[in-house]
Amino acid sequence: MSRIAAVTVTPVAFRDPPLLNAVGVHEPYALRAIVEITTDAGVTGLGETYADEGHLARLAVVAEAVVGQDVFALNRIHERAGQALAGDTGSDGHGLTGLITTSGTVDRVFSPFEVACLDVQGKLLGRPVSDLLGGAVRERVPFSAYLFYKWAAHPGGEPDAWGAALDPDGIVAQARTMLDRYGFSAVKLKGGVFPPEQEIAAIRALRKEFPALPLRLDPNAAWNVQTSVEVGRALAGVLEYLEDPTPGIAGMAEVAGRVPMPLATNMCVVGFDEVPDAVRAGSVGVILSDHHYWGGLQRSRVLAGICDTFGLGLSMHSNSHLGVSLAAMVHLAAATPNLRYACDTHWPWKREDEDVVRPGALAFERGSVAVPTGPGLGIELDRDALARLHEQFLACGLRNRDDTGYMRRVDPGYELVQPRW
Amino acid sequence: MSRIAAVTVTPVAFRDPPLLNAVGVHEPYALRAIVEITTDAGVTGLGETYADEGHLARLAVVAEAVVGQDVFALNRIHERAGQALAGDTGSDGHGLTGLITTSGTVDRVFSPFEVACLDVQGKLLGRPVSDLLGGAVRERVPFSAYLFYKWAAHPGGEPDAWGAALDPDGIVAQARTMLDRYGFSAVKLKGGVFPPEQEIAAIRALRKEFPALPLRLDPNAAWNVQTSVEVGRALAGVLEYLEDPTPGIAGMAEVAGRVPMPLATNMCVVGFDEVPDAVRAGSVGVILSDHHYWGGLQRSRVLAGICDTFGLGLSMHSNSHLGVSLAAMVHLAAATPNLRYACDTHWPWKREDEDVVRPGALAFERGSVAVPTGPGLGIELDRDALARLHEQFLACGLRNRDDTGYMRRVDPGYELVQPRW
Ligand SMILES: [Mg+2]
Ligand SMILES: [Mg+2]
Repeated sequence: MSRIAAVTVTPVAFRDPPLLNAVGVHEPYALRAIVEITTDAGVTGLGETYADEGHLARLAVVAEAVVGQDVFALNRIHERAGQALAGDTGSDGHGLTGLITTSGTVDRVFSPFEVACLDVQGKLLGRPVSDLLGGAVRERVPFSAYLFYKWAAHPGGEPDAWGAALDPDGIVAQARTMLDRYGFSAVKLKGGVFPPEQEIAAIRALRKEFPALPLRLDPNAAWNVQTSVEVGRALAGVLEYLEDPTPGIAGMAEVAGRVPMPLATNMCVVGFDEVPDAVRAGSVGVILSDHHYWGGLQRSRVLAGICDTFGLGLSMHSNSHLGVSLAAMVHLAAATPNLRYACDTHWPWKREDEDVVRPGALAFERGSVAVPTGPGLGIELDRDALARLHEQFLACGLRNRDDTGYMRRVDPGYELVQPRW
Repeated sequence: MSRIAAVTVTPVAFRDPPLLNAVGVHEPYALRAIVEITTDAGVTGLGETYADEGHLARLAVVAEAVVGQDVFALNRIHERAGQALAGDTGSDGHGLTGLITTSGTVDRVFSPFEVACLDVQGKLLGRPVSDLLGGAVRERVPFSAYLFYKWAAHPGGEPDAWGAALDPDGIVAQARTMLDRYGFSAVKLKGGVFPPEQEIAAIRALRKEFPALPLRLDPNAAWNVQTSVEVGRALAGVLEYLEDPTPGIAGMAEVAGRVPMPLATNMCVVGFDEVPDAVRAGSVGVILSDHHYWGGLQRSRVLAGICDTFGLGLSMHSNSHLGVSLAAMVHLAAATPNLRYACDTHWPWKREDEDVVRPGALAFERGSVAVPTGPGLGIELDRDALARLHEQFLACGLRNRDDTGYMRRVDPGYELVQPRW
């Protein structure tokens, strides 16, 4: 037995540029929580998750419930998390996903504990986490460039190195910088910010500049069905997939039947509960998995199996994240044969000098990250850096992600409308 | 790395009583193959599977293809098996399942290699295989009594200890003996042998004798839709589930909509390819998993996740098997939270003095088997016993399971008809 002797959950904040999306703009800091478990023999494992207040409260409840459990008892730990959170269906404001259900909440809170347990398991065995997931089928995991419309600076702040991107030229310039620096093999534009015709123009400008790269557009359900169909048809042959053009399983199904490219989602299907309806309706062609809310790495493999079984494509979603999540994403993606799309990552938007893991373990080259081959996740916690980012969390004053509220402080006339066009 | 240095596949035969079913009668010997892998460091792992000629030929092809692979590289080993068997869609006569597809063939041939690799992994880690599957959620795995109509003896042979069971009284007596000896907590009758009204009478006799035990009836698709509906309605409130009353996804769906109990299957859904149609049609309420053809233990967990996601029950199927398979079934069942039905097993029909594993590791008590807690599968190969059962294989002359052919040698007028009633 390797029993969990202690769990610590440390909320951290790291600087985030003013990235625009369908509900507002990223605040100056992104919030994450680092979950560290220590076994009775002193072996440690790491997980990373959201850090909004409601989520932190749930993490504390589950942290207490799992002490004493064997790190291999993942089924039981999931069951305990479910018992500890029974009946808890409140929102946990972790970002842009869909419906909140009890089982979705359990999967989301359980996830960092599972990742940390797998990290310990790998260390005990002297094997990378990917080996605990059936073994890597690729040595490197390809990622996609994640472009955002953005301001040059946070209001009242200094401009960041990326500068503004508020039109097709700005987006193309951003893509060029990002591709030069990281070499990504696909490009995704976060849309839903400007009227659809402007975003169509940006995608066309990208296509012109990068004729060979797969392109994706994600307006986060900012469009109604008719607009979605028009955009989809206007971009026929241009997009690899169109991500969440419109809200809901029914709306997505209607669009899916009328546009030529597959629809992808990380909004209308964000938990196992939602899969049957979406399959029945034919709402999506691609599910963006995300171990942070699909219940960890092993349950993400079940999702992969479901996609494989039902003929759905599989890609990978990202929120703003640090190195612990990147490592987990890389191990999972490497060990998932049917994950054939380049994965999303917000990595380029994070400052290089802000992370909680020691540098060197994870590096982008030619758009991909080599799967760590050391034991566990293959990363090491930098305690000084963790302390610094925790201080930053305490000092920054942000406690719940609120892209809309932040936008309204800048532009009091801003209103949240979904769908907007 | 722990590379596979050698693979041996040993076909064995063990004595089997004259158990009747919808396609004939069990021959005097059941055939199985024991797959043993040895790593470059000399660690060994065991798997067990079918031993029909076509299957043995495929096992030999895949055995060659996996030498040199790391025992943790299960995804790659599956991929290699697929490459080695590409285009192979011939029948492999392993028993009573459904459609043969390429992917189904790969999963069936891959399975014993996966189990053997997990056995090695567990030994390397000093952990039971259940821990590699998320950990046991139950310490004991409950099984069901598997009743068969049977003759007293194989033609020309001595009567076995069970005697004949050819009517309700015989079935009740068999159940009594089996329950007294093993303490099972559910009862399944293999039907499809006698006209439905006789089998209904047998089930009613069982209900009268064992008022509290869940009962199941499995005629292996011997009935047409109308007969299935009539039997289902006649046994309303009596059966826990009705297993494969009629052939095919469409027929099953029709019956499912007109009988009060859930339908279960190990015939119309025997591979991932068949799941979507069955889900769409609503053909079944319960899938009987079987790691021997669902691609091993990890892929059986994917099946479990699919059942959980789509609101299907999960039970476990069995063919005649030895201790290696029983150990694998127990680890899988223990680590599958939503496997809530008592599992099938042919165990009572096997002589106690015939097995390939050393006695003691697996014992039935109160109808259940304790999950082995030692490293790997927790069993040990008895090489003398393996050699004896291999000699028996060579001597017995059987090379392909043929219940129908055997029945026709006894009763030349016997014809295979499906559905028969
Ligand atoms: Mg998205
Ligand atoms: Mg059956």
